[in-house]
Amino acid sequence: MPRCIYLDHAATSYPKPPAVLFAVTDCMKKHGGNPGRSSHRLSLEAAKEIYACREVAARLFHATPDRVVFTLNTTHALNLAIKGIMGRGGHAICSDMEHNSVYRPLYRMAEEGVCDFDVFDTFPTAPLRTDSMILASLASKIRPDTRMVVCAGISNICPSTLPIRKIGEFCHRRGILFVVDGAQSAGVTELDTERDHIDALCLPGHKGLLGPQGTGMLILGKGLTLDTLMEGGNGMDSLRGEMSEDTPERYEAGTLQTPAIAGLRAGMELVESVGVEALGAHGFSLGVGLRDRLREIPKVTVYTPHLNGSTVLFSVEGYTSEEVGRRLDGEGICVRPGFHCSALGHRTLGTPDGGAVRVSFGWGSRERDGDALLRCLKTL
Amino acid sequence: MPRCIYLDHAATSYPKPPAVLFAVTDCMKKHGGNPGRSSHRLSLEAAKEIYACREVAARLFHATPDRVVFTLNTTHALNLAIKGIMGRGGHAICSDMEHNSVYRPLYRMAEEGVCDFDVFDTFPTAPLRTDSMILASLASKIRPDTRMVVCAGISNICPSTLPIRKIGEFCHRRGILFVVDGAQSAGVTELDTERDHIDALCLPGHKGLLGPQGTGMLILGKGLTLDTLMEGGNGMDSLRGEMSEDTPERYEAGTLQTPAIAGLRAGMELVESVGVEALGAHGFSLGVGLRDRLREIPKVTVYTPHLNGSTVLFSVEGYTSEEVGRRLDGEGICVRPGFHCSALGHRTLGTPDGGAVRVSFGWGSRERDGDALLRCLKTL
Repeated sequence: MPRCIYLDHAATSYPKPPAVLFAVTDCMKKHGGNPGRSSHRLSLEAAKEIYACREVAARLFHATPDRVVFTLNTTHALNLAIKGIMGRGGHAICSDMEHNSVYRPLYRMAEEGVCDFDVFDTFPTAPLRTDSMILASLASKIRPDTRMVVCAGISNICPSTLPIRKIGEFCHRRGILFVVDGAQSAGVTELDTERDHIDALCLPGHKGLLGPQGTGMLILGKGLTLDTLMEGGNGMDSLRGEMSEDTPERYEAGTLQTPAIAGLRAGMELVESVGVEALGAHGFSLGVGLRDRLREIPKVTVYTPHLNGSTVLFSVEGYTSEEVGRRLDGEGICVRPGFHCSALGHRTLGTPDGGAVRVSFGWGSRERDGDALLRCLKTL
Repeated sequence: MPRCIYLDHAATSYPKPPAVLFAVTDCMKKHGGNPGRSSHRLSLEAAKEIYACREVAARLFHATPDRVVFTLNTTHALNLAIKGIMGRGGHAICSDMEHNSVYRPLYRMAEEGVCDFDVFDTFPTAPLRTDSMILASLASKIRPDTRMVVCAGISNICPSTLPIRKIGEFCHRRGILFVVDGAQSAGVTELDTERDHIDALCLPGHKGLLGPQGTGMLILGKGLTLDTLMEGGNGMDSLRGEMSEDTPERYEAGTLQTPAIAGLRAGMELVESVGVEALGAHGFSLGVGLRDRLREIPKVTVYTPHLNGSTVLFSVEGYTSEEVGRRLDGEGICVRPGFHCSALGHRTLGTPDGGAVRVSFGWGSRERDGDALLRCLKTL
């Protein structure tokens, strides 16, 4: 393995904790039945693996285990939530910093006339930015038929955060469903489905929760039943044509990714024991430190220089983001150039043609990783 | 680990080959980037893992690597194919032995008035059963607006097989799209998307292909573009609202399950080196042997006693399938009682209330596994 300074935690966390690797392999070795499909010991042991993971997720996000739905990734969870709510029409609102996993399902449904959507402003580049400004913009988009607000807790391209709890209260008072993309927040900020009035919390297993790629979750609010995205067997009510009404089985058609879910449990247990606050603060301080030093380099533009977080987005005059990324990779420094699957976000920030370079810190990052990046940039 | 005789290969294969376990862990350790998301080394290595798996799948199923779409499981692949074809209306036909992963998506779309569907007969219980009977039944269901035929190559509850190549030719001549559920056929019978005129081949990674749970594939026919089931980021055309037209990226929104896909590659490589024919013949001979000995036990009813294959479905007079399953599990013998997520199939076979017991042999099964099962049944 070549020397590698990994600064792409917003894409996926790396390396994974040894306990995660062990849990995946151990599950494949010992608990190899198909969960929920039979009543024999290997099937029951697989089902126990899965239930154990639901329990940890329920603790971390203040839900109950039966409301934890496993998905392939956050995009799957978001499609399930967004289409499950908006598939029968109405009006939706998302923020101007959303990832394509929110924007593209809404865009398609709007193109096909299934539902409408509007975009509210979140002012990430404003030197003075308040929650009230954001909430006023959201309020200005509300229509009588608004059924859903969807937004990310933390942007995937810069440290823009949204006041999730206040937006949740705002929606709750108006009877509007609130869907949160927790792709960048899970494992680094507290997300509480009860306190924050979140009806559908969409999560990756493989980023801040330190689990394997191929895991995601949708945590459903109490009493909410969605239309399904996929139908099939789930070991329940096999003789009926309809999916059962029971959560989570209603949304989990087909064989689950048992070994990866066992790994996710191990990842979340680590997050739980270290603490979300500590993990968040670690990336946060590294991100803010790098941002401040990047701002001192004359030809570097830092987007959202006023915002604090574990991610830094920048460009270098005279170089495309791809060129900067390639130069850094030559030194073994892994960052992500381009547009980061965020059409809305890059438009909002006004990044140049060719996009910008994203540096994102995570649980294994160290201060010297940022130092190495700065040294390399200075050779440009 | 308790002593275990695993006879539930139709649910998932177990144990997994050591090479599969190694590939999963090795990928997590060394190739932990997010594939297709960045241009740094760890991301490129992850992308290579995935492309290598596409190549093996393309060889096994006679396609090209770009037509191999990864999914969470077969159900995901079937929902993508069925809804991607029928989402804009028309008429579909499925067989009377389909799994709920085919039946339930069709049932829901019909309930919502999106499309119609009919069921053709496959005569699994007829002592004399010919391909012509099956094709005549299929032909009788064709309507001018029939757009798709979908059926499983091998049933998941008994050894009923369908003449996939002939059905493919039948559909091809009429310009009807042909979707095959290969859940039970992959890795044990030859499936050739070209020769068999299959437009969408839906496959599990974790059954006959010996990969980890959490893997499935949709192998698309040449030149076919489907409506998407999920939209989101795929590292391509990030500034557009629409998903790209390119296969496979169009259908792979969000982060793929890279480690599981690496494991699937290892599983398929093993299948390739041992040979599909040899693997199929192994389970086949064990299944036929057990069936013939079960038929000699007075109180046992074997469903489809005339059909040969690796799966045997039976019931025991005076016991529910659940009771038989529990007794076998007490002896460490893992089978699956009940309805096996197949409303149509159990109705067609006329199994009793409470369903029947399914025994399914696979790559690690031995003749003495069937002996143990028979000994235990005789104590009932």
